[in-house]
Amino acid sequence: MPHLVILYTPNIEADADIAGLCRKLAGTMLAQKDDEGRQVFPTGGTRVLAYPAAHHAVADTSGDHAFAYLNLRMASGRPDAVRKRIGDALAACAKSHFAPLLAQRHVGITFQIDEAPGQVYDAKIGNLHAFFG
Amino acid sequence: MPHLVILYTPNIEADADIAGLCRKLAGTMLAQKDDEGRQVFPTGGTRVLAYPAAHHAVADTSGDHAFAYLNLRMASGRPDAVRKRIGDALAACAKSHFAPLLAQRHVGITFQIDEAPGQVYDAKIGNLHAFFG
Amino acid sequence: MPHLVILYTPNIEADADIAGLCRKLAGTMLAQKDDEGRQVFPTGGTRVLAYPAAHHAVADTSGDHAFAYLNLRMASGRPDAVRKRIGDALAACAKSHFAPLLAQRHVGITFQIDEAPGQVYDAKIGNLHAFFG
Repeated sequence: MPHLVILYTPNIEADADIAGLCRKLAGTMLAQKDDEGRQVFPTGGTRVLAYPAAHHAVADTSGDHAFAYLNLRMASGRPDAVRKRIGDALAACAKSHFAPLLAQRHVGITFQIDEAPGQVYDAKIGNLHAFFG
Repeated sequence: MPHLVILYTPNIEADADIAGLCRKLAGTMLAQKDDEGRQVFPTGGTRVLAYPAAHHAVADTSGDHAFAYLNLRMASGRPDAVRKRIGDALAACAKSHFAPLLAQRHVGITFQIDEAPGQVYDAKIGNLHAFFG
Repeated sequence: MPHLVILYTPNIEADADIAGLCRKLAGTMLAQKDDEGRQVFPTGGTRVLAYPAAHHAVADTSGDHAFAYLNLRMASGRPDAVRKRIGDALAACAKSHFAPLLAQRHVGITFQIDEAPGQVYDAKIGNLHAFFG
């Protein structure tokens, strides 16, 4: 954790540079600090994955409307002020990235953070955390 | 919001018309009314996205079994009666859509509604809500 | 239910045998027993779906790092001991499956179980449960 998953309509694939958005969002996550100035998210646990839909319907399906949903799942228990700072930074990153697209066409964009809802089991199996210390 | 995400096994791609299902589900969402007769979901916030899996295993993997999972995420706080009406309408839509397929083969179909579980941050960044007023 | 969804970076597609992992995880789910020795999960409700990302960013994006996220959603209310047994069995299955890959390269692997978070509506529409009795 954190895991940021992007679901989007394929009609923005050519113009939205989603690969670039993934890199910017990962960079923004790694730049977050807590009140003591420490990095909020572990480097080896920071992941962004993006998926264009195979089929979709947006709004009243009257036109070629587009949509992107950004969902960050992170561990629970961080202070409200830290949550807000993380949220504001990532929302600003997405807003900036999508600005040229929003100037051209109609796109719905939602960004939400969930704190591991309903989680009852958690296991880290890989070796990436150890690699990044 | 609302966001309805469909995850399914690719062995129903040719016969299940998932693109048509997306359009029907979006239409059903837009037709929902609250107790005062107002539209429950904003037009510009209604989205359906569907994803065939690249790999899958269903049941005891003894045959070419199929599966579709429909998950609606919506904002929390609607009255129970409205939730039930929305759920019943969308379940009926899916049941009707899949009826010909269910007459031919074995398909597991689950539909669930979640109310923004564990959500601690929410941002709408796009311009689609404004377009639909 | 249960539904196990695997999200992963496509840079492990050739070496990780994700199709085989899906089958092993489904088999492990079906082998789980409660304290009375009964099968925990219904055969017809057991599903594993895997999705390689179209775009991704992992850690500091300094290298070709890989990531797999395994998320099991199951109905709520099982005893803690059963949850832990299910979690340990599936984590062991994943660990064993990924061991050769972890010996070769850096891969982040997270496995989490959620108990139907925020769920307010549930419908089973298909005919697969009936087929498996």
